[in-house]
Amino acid sequence: MNIQTNINDLVVGYDVPALPGMDEADIQTPCLVLDLDALERNIKKMGDYAAAHGMRHRVHGKMHKSVDVAKLQEQLGGAVGVCCQKVSEAEVFVRGGIKDVLVSNQVRDPLKIDRLAQLPKLGSRILVCVDDLANVDGLSAAVQKHGTKLDCLIEIDCGAGRCGVNSTKDVVVIAKAIQAAEGLNFTGIQAYQGAMQHMDSYDDRKAKLDIAIDLVEDAVAGLKAEGITCELVSGGGTGSYYFESNSGVYNELQCGSYAFMDADYGRILDRNGTRIDQGEWENALFILTSVMSHTKADKAICDAGLKAQSMDSGLPFIYGRDDVEYLKCSDEHGVIGDPDGVLKVNDKLRLVPGHCDPTCNVHDWYVGVRDGKVETLWPVSARGKAY
Amino acid sequence: MNIQTNINDLVVGYDVPALPGMDEADIQTPCLVLDLDALERNIKKMGDYAAAHGMRHRVHGKMHKSVDVAKLQEQLGGAVGVCCQKVSEAEVFVRGGIKDVLVSNQVRDPLKIDRLAQLPKLGSRILVCVDDLANVDGLSAAVQKHGTKLDCLIEIDCGAGRCGVNSTKDVVVIAKAIQAAEGLNFTGIQAYQGAMQHMDSYDDRKAKLDIAIDLVEDAVAGLKAEGITCELVSGGGTGSYYFESNSGVYNELQCGSYAFMDADYGRILDRNGTRIDQGEWENALFILTSVMSHTKADKAICDAGLKAQSMDSGLPFIYGRDDVEYLKCSDEHGVIGDPDGVLKVNDKLRLVPGHCDPTCNVHDWYVGVRDGKVETLWPVSARGKAY
Repeated sequence: MNIQTNINDLVVGYDVPALPGMDEADIQTPCLVLDLDALERNIKKMGDYAAAHGMRHRVHGKMHKSVDVAKLQEQLGGAVGVCCQKVSEAEVFVRGGIKDVLVSNQVRDPLKIDRLAQLPKLGSRILVCVDDLANVDGLSAAVQKHGTKLDCLIEIDCGAGRCGVNSTKDVVVIAKAIQAAEGLNFTGIQAYQGAMQHMDSYDDRKAKLDIAIDLVEDAVAGLKAEGITCELVSGGGTGSYYFESNSGVYNELQCGSYAFMDADYGRILDRNGTRIDQGEWENALFILTSVMSHTKADKAICDAGLKAQSMDSGLPFIYGRDDVEYLKCSDEHGVIGDPDGVLKVNDKLRLVPGHCDPTCNVHDWYVGVRDGKVETLWPVSARGKAY
Repeated sequence: MNIQTNINDLVVGYDVPALPGMDEADIQTPCLVLDLDALERNIKKMGDYAAAHGMRHRVHGKMHKSVDVAKLQEQLGGAVGVCCQKVSEAEVFVRGGIKDVLVSNQVRDPLKIDRLAQLPKLGSRILVCVDDLANVDGLSAAVQKHGTKLDCLIEIDCGAGRCGVNSTKDVVVIAKAIQAAEGLNFTGIQAYQGAMQHMDSYDDRKAKLDIAIDLVEDAVAGLKAEGITCELVSGGGTGSYYFESNSGVYNELQCGSYAFMDADYGRILDRNGTRIDQGEWENALFILTSVMSHTKADKAICDAGLKAQSMDSGLPFIYGRDDVEYLKCSDEHGVIGDPDGVLKVNDKLRLVPGHCDPTCNVHDWYVGVRDGKVETLWPVSARGKAY
């Protein structure tokens, strides 16, 4: 689907929820709003951290699915490129001008492999993960067909129990096969521990990451014993990046949610026991919603329901308010507890979604605001690109 | 966002998950697949039912958000038009050629009211719901500004506890105001009992609907006592339409999910105690997914996670299989229990999503299949139109 690049040709309503220059009060709700000041501070802070720790930062584009946000992360945060999870996302990022793109996932379907193998022709470095010896021949045949190259990381299952190899022996066998395969480079290790990122306690997260680091160290040593070196050892999210950065074995981070924050991540605690959304990171992403019915004295109905957010990680909270509470979600509506009847029809509220990734994936646009005005509109460029 | 209408100009991957003429085996997953035979049978069956019972059928477009499906419902099912929940959806349906469109929701924001009041200029009849006397002046001013008319239904809260007036007295007061307002027509009653549609037991659903019917009868009688008649009394969903059809007071249905079915609706029982997806309606909507990693003997990982479906109503089930089970969902992956190790990488499975409405809302395309071939691609035309 082609997205028109001249947003001033677009019509408010049919095409977009707002246009640059509008007052925040006139934005058509529900839609995603980015607090550009907070976003820029988050991006710069993580970039400074990575630089200070000698880490590359390959930002996770699957979270925001936005070429514009990725470019801001390159400019303000020194990001070296993006990772993403689907070939269709990589197609969007590469066509959007991102020069270093990792599909941090397996690509097995023959047509998908063919699509992936064509991407380097557009001028970007393309990396992909492998967890099965049987994948190597197909990747090699495709790059030979297209006259391209692919860089391959072997994915280690660090404890999530999904994709990834389960032993150093498997890592070594697959690495050798990649080295022997025409058109493929063995580039290193993908080791992202996704299952621990949302554990509240810092110590619980550290215990899980210590196990992952041991696995990665063992794999790197096993490869070294065979004379194979890793250019990249990549992993680390918003709930763990300090562990990978200080591990001595990882050299690349893959953080995503830090830039936007959400309710579920915000609840986790830093090493001092402080919620990370009350110190480490700022809420930059909101669902702007309006009250559109209030026929019950103690309940206001707002226009942000299931189709404006994902409920997989729980309800949103209402930013900056403790007098009203988002109680319940149906397809098109949210029920807001308003015990003192303070809300009026057309009042606007900022919701912090439970889970930013799948919430961004239901919207077409980020409305960037600063000082009460719409400053920019960014398409959620890879929205719906799951295939 | 403009959708190109010549789908053969589109590229598989970057633009679309499939093209007409492809074998089903080559479809890029995950994506939505419609079994066109099953869809057509469902649509015809409900159309026949409505005709036999003398009911108008205004199909619920918020479910599929597709102009193409709505037109099929008009052609095969005798639908009189659509209802939808948002002005942005109505904009899409009207521009797509649907001539009778009800926004079965309140419209309160001034710019939204202005957008709504312009829609009749495009040649469609536009209806909207009202539950607050304070809304009438704004609607009237907007249609006068644009030289148009709006038909107004008063929404009654039938038990969902969200929008809608709470007494016949309020219905009469607002109806009189609408009748007195320049450019507005009082057209009748909106009375959709959404909260009972998913109750498993037929008798439990009937008990809830009996209460709604009593409320509607009282409102219609109250209006009649003031000399006000209702052209339309509209409501009824997939879990209740037989109650409204036999009520003697409703004359218009608003069913949506019957056309596609989903796991949550499928579980409800008809009056004989049979699941409605095993007799009354066929599963026509599927998420097509592929196995893309299988490094654990008893677990296959598929490519349909949270971004390919909504989890609000529970996990999907795997259609036609009892040897494997969808166990767990993360952002990009599904974990499939495969105790006997029968699945192989690249095997395709059809998932029946927990909840069709918000699942359709994360995809850009319906891939229509018949006899193992892709026959058509339909854009999810109002996808993301929440504002």
